[in-house]
Amino acid sequence: MRGVIDVYPYPILVKAVWFDESRSEICWINTTKLPHEEEIICSNDPMRVAKAIRDMEIRGAPAIGVAAALTIGAYALKISGKGIEEFIALINSAIHTLLKTRPTAYNLFYALAKMQRALREMESKTSDTYTIAKKLVETALEIYREDVMANLKIGEYGAELIPDNTTILTHCNAGALATSAYGTALGVIRVAWYKGKRIRVIATETRPLLQGARLTVYELVKEGIPVTLVTDNAVGLLMRKGKIDLVVVGADRITRDGYVVNKIGTYMIALAASKHKIPFYVAAPTSTIDIEHTIEQVIIEERDPREVKYVMNQLITLEQVGVYNYAFDITDPDLVAAIITELGVVKPPYDKTIPDIMSKKTSTW
Amino acid sequence: MRGVIDVYPYPILVKAVWFDESRSEICWINTTKLPHEEEIICSNDPMRVAKAIRDMEIRGAPAIGVAAALTIGAYALKISGKGIEEFIALINSAIHTLLKTRPTAYNLFYALAKMQRALREMESKTSDTYTIAKKLVETALEIYREDVMANLKIGEYGAELIPDNTTILTHCNAGALATSAYGTALGVIRVAWYKGKRIRVIATETRPLLQGARLTVYELVKEGIPVTLVTDNAVGLLMRKGKIDLVVVGADRITRDGYVVNKIGTYMIALAASKHKIPFYVAAPTSTIDIEHTIEQVIIEERDPREVKYVMNQLITLEQVGVYNYAFDITDPDLVAAIITELGVVKPPYDKTIPDIMSKKTSTW
Repeated sequence: MRGVIDVYPYPILVKAVWFDESRSEICWINTTKLPHEEEIICSNDPMRVAKAIRDMEIRGAPAIGVAAALTIGAYALKISGKGIEEFIALINSAIHTLLKTRPTAYNLFYALAKMQRALREMESKTSDTYTIAKKLVETALEIYREDVMANLKIGEYGAELIPDNTTILTHCNAGALATSAYGTALGVIRVAWYKGKRIRVIATETRPLLQGARLTVYELVKEGIPVTLVTDNAVGLLMRKGKIDLVVVGADRITRDGYVVNKIGTYMIALAASKHKIPFYVAAPTSTIDIEHTIEQVIIEERDPREVKYVMNQLITLEQVGVYNYAFDITDPDLVAAIITELGVVKPPYDKTIPDIMSKKTSTW
Repeated sequence: MRGVIDVYPYPILVKAVWFDESRSEICWINTTKLPHEEEIICSNDPMRVAKAIRDMEIRGAPAIGVAAALTIGAYALKISGKGIEEFIALINSAIHTLLKTRPTAYNLFYALAKMQRALREMESKTSDTYTIAKKLVETALEIYREDVMANLKIGEYGAELIPDNTTILTHCNAGALATSAYGTALGVIRVAWYKGKRIRVIATETRPLLQGARLTVYELVKEGIPVTLVTDNAVGLLMRKGKIDLVVVGADRITRDGYVVNKIGTYMIALAASKHKIPFYVAAPTSTIDIEHTIEQVIIEERDPREVKYVMNQLITLEQVGVYNYAFDITDPDLVAAIITELGVVKPPYDKTIPDIMSKKTSTW
């Protein structure tokens, strides 16, 4: 998407989602087919995008939020020939459909709440559907731009925490393929790298869907940043052997007291980091921070058992076996050295510092 | 193998290795093809068995030790028509070949040292190659029998530690497919189950080679013991959710001060168990205990990067990416609630209790 940022200060070699202005459609790279195939899909159909989010063609909390917003914009333009009442009803229904796609990533709720609010504001001012649609596209692009800028600022703040000559462990993919630009965890790594720091990355493969092996390795190899792949269960030994200097991961939701909900496996990495006194950082935009709910109220998504029983469509066990397939886990605040946001680096005590930084946020729902 | 034990007190539905007396060959189930194919291979060729151990057709520390011993027995019979000098040289060379197959599992060294000692004793007594060969077969069968009995005793001692109505997590496969009979960790589970305790098992898939998904699930489904499969990285969340009551794993080597070398991932499970105050037990015969070496002297095997980059022959990442593929990790003594051996349950302080129990061992090298 050109025009969103005048000049990207660092290379952008991979994009997860963008708005195609010529077609008024949202486009995305189908991350389920990476790294073997680079399939681009464009749509202005909320049902199609909802399926893409559910099936994880589009994944990563910030990318999901941006995609949902852009979809509402594209869809509003598409149906702007309808009468106002049908138009409003269809947009509300599309928002509802997108809200129901995945329960854990907070950015989805953040972005759609913003879109809902823009719709309500416009409804009270005009019954011109095209005017409303244009405003919804603008709002979606604002959310998109906000995420691009958040990536950049997270990268800049985070890079200051990375010493020269460092081996960084990251889990899953919190990169370009999970956001609108550089990524959150990988945004930190990219900015440190482009500032000339000597960085080596260790990427966990991230079962069941292998986002580390498929997406993080793909992004970093493309960028020329040295990366080594490991199984998720190897992290403890690697820390014991002194092969990891720090950890940086993304987040799907952060509560106001600093619990971090992120890809399954994050918690075990944080426990090992704590044992070995290795800094464990979380990089996330404030759109990931949920100041409303307690950790007990957060729904941890359970996904299809087939994701565990099959790897790339091959059965790895007996078909009849039962499975637990929680997509996320919970890391305690005391295991997190700092949370790197676009508004600055937040340190413990999080129950004080997170509400503080959120109060500085100018953008409100 | 019939005749080794008069009556097995519990069902034996799966066997990893055995001695075929009619053919004088060692036979094994090729565990790399499970659970989709049950391929049985028999041989009296040390090179073939060495390949089977390296390629993990035969795996699991006790099974490796027993297989190596039985192979020397079978091979000695096969070449007993040779002259004494050539016979001795060939046996020594076969022992050397088998010793070099894998560096970490201690049982291999234990079993082959016993065979070596039997050979030296016979050499000094007779130059009749057939007499020596028969003695080597007998010694190998003793090692085999010792492992069967160890499985049983480990099961009996371990079952006492398992309360009724318990969900047990196990990692990798420390079952029938890793030993001569019931398994070590799965021996404990089996005996508890057959004593009528209500047991549910959670099996980690165990990347890279998926011994949990392929072997543990296969064994337990066959036996009708309830089992749920999870990814390795899910253990932390499951413990947080209270879904795991205790952990029991096997071991590839245990040092005299209680460091446990076991399948990669064990350490992270032990850390999570410690955090959640869940008992973490290790079940292993004393043939796994290495009283000679410190943990710093133990070689952690690094295996082919392709094991990580491919799952069942499918590339899951970019071919050119680098990999760390350590097969084992190290768990600190303070994370281990008890070590269940055939001579009894050993508790901390291990630097005192392990040498104590080893001094009770009547069988010496």
